[in-house]
Amino acid sequence: MKKGKFIVVEGLEGAGKSTSLETIIKTLNMLGISDPVLTREPGGTPLAEKLRYLIKHETEEPVTDKAELLMLYAARIQLVENVIKPALTEGKWVIGDRHDMSSQAYQGGGRQIDSNLINTLRTITLGDFEPDFTLYLDIDPALGLARAKGRGKLDRIEQQKLDFFYRTRQRYLELVKDNPKAVIIDATQEFDQVQIAVEQAIENFVKQVK
Amino acid sequence: MKKGKFIVVEGLEGAGKSTSLETIIKTLNMLGISDPVLTREPGGTPLAEKLRYLIKHETEEPVTDKAELLMLYAARIQLVENVIKPALTEGKWVIGDRHDMSSQAYQGGGRQIDSNLINTLRTITLGDFEPDFTLYLDIDPALGLARAKGRGKLDRIEQQKLDFFYRTRQRYLELVKDNPKAVIIDATQEFDQVQIAVEQAIENFVKQVK
Repeated sequence: MKKGKFIVVEGLEGAGKSTSLETIIKTLNMLGISDPVLTREPGGTPLAEKLRYLIKHETEEPVTDKAELLMLYAARIQLVENVIKPALTEGKWVIGDRHDMSSQAYQGGGRQIDSNLINTLRTITLGDFEPDFTLYLDIDPALGLARAKGRGKLDRIEQQKLDFFYRTRQRYLELVKDNPKAVIIDATQEFDQVQIAVEQAIENFVKQVK
Repeated sequence: MKKGKFIVVEGLEGAGKSTSLETIIKTLNMLGISDPVLTREPGGTPLAEKLRYLIKHETEEPVTDKAELLMLYAARIQLVENVIKPALTEGKWVIGDRHDMSSQAYQGGGRQIDSNLINTLRTITLGDFEPDFTLYLDIDPALGLARAKGRGKLDRIEQQKLDFFYRTRQRYLELVKDNPKAVIIDATQEFDQVQIAVEQAIENFVKQVK
């Protein structure tokens, strides 16, 4: 039986996910929830990290959109079955740096893969498993990418053209709008304001479920 | 437009696929079809070979059945889109050491993954692409594995228990029975007899399509 909660942070490159993840850990700590399990996607298990590397850095041949999608779901199943579900069952909280919404936004929106196909794949692999709460950090793609570039070399997905990221953002906004378990955080605000918004969102969520 | 033909050899470990592939190449040559493209699955492209390695040799964590299945299809899409279809379009013949029937037999039969799930995955990834002709080399699993063991260390899939391979063979037999583009070769016969049967099957197929 599931006793912990699974919180996910989503958003484009440069939206401030890393800082927000730290804020979430601190806020949970303040509220008496310590030692959450941290995950990242794609990745988070030995096999999933190897798949992450192939997804991000394959350069010997063109990666088809569908192969990319299947590798993402292969990595996700490993993480969900071998890490997330066991942790939740033990009563631990899990904080995810991305989860399924990323595939829907990037592969469905950005790459324009049929969303029915993605939903079918999600259903046959994950069943009804989903995060308890998702924070989507919303940022203009041009601003986010400018921030991401400041961090160094871009990977295969970060190298997509700007309209790819506009489509991805658009899909994120649609997904969050339809999801009662997700909130939008305006990530273009001042740094401190963003963190205050993250803190408040987490406090509200914990109040609801504790 | 597709001009070449795609011939696949299927069968359990130790059924004699390698020798039969050589026989097919020689037979096609005799019939004036030279320089076929040879593929193997999982594998056959740079990315697909990396996935093959993960599928066969991942030991750091348990590989879930569904992740294995998705990696197999990711590898297959890369091979079909980047190698097989372009070769067929150029008018080349392609000879495959395994293809989709392996996933249906090993993952559907051996691992007992729901065959509707596998069919859905096949449809959303490969559409209606399929081999023009399949030779299934049928052998008793115990005999096949005894032969395979003689070749050296068994990989993650070859290490399955014997009943896994009996289920796989059973599924192969069902699949071939329902497939007008497939034939069974009795691979328990004397070595020369098997190669004569392979040669005759190829000659019959070429007569039909040329």
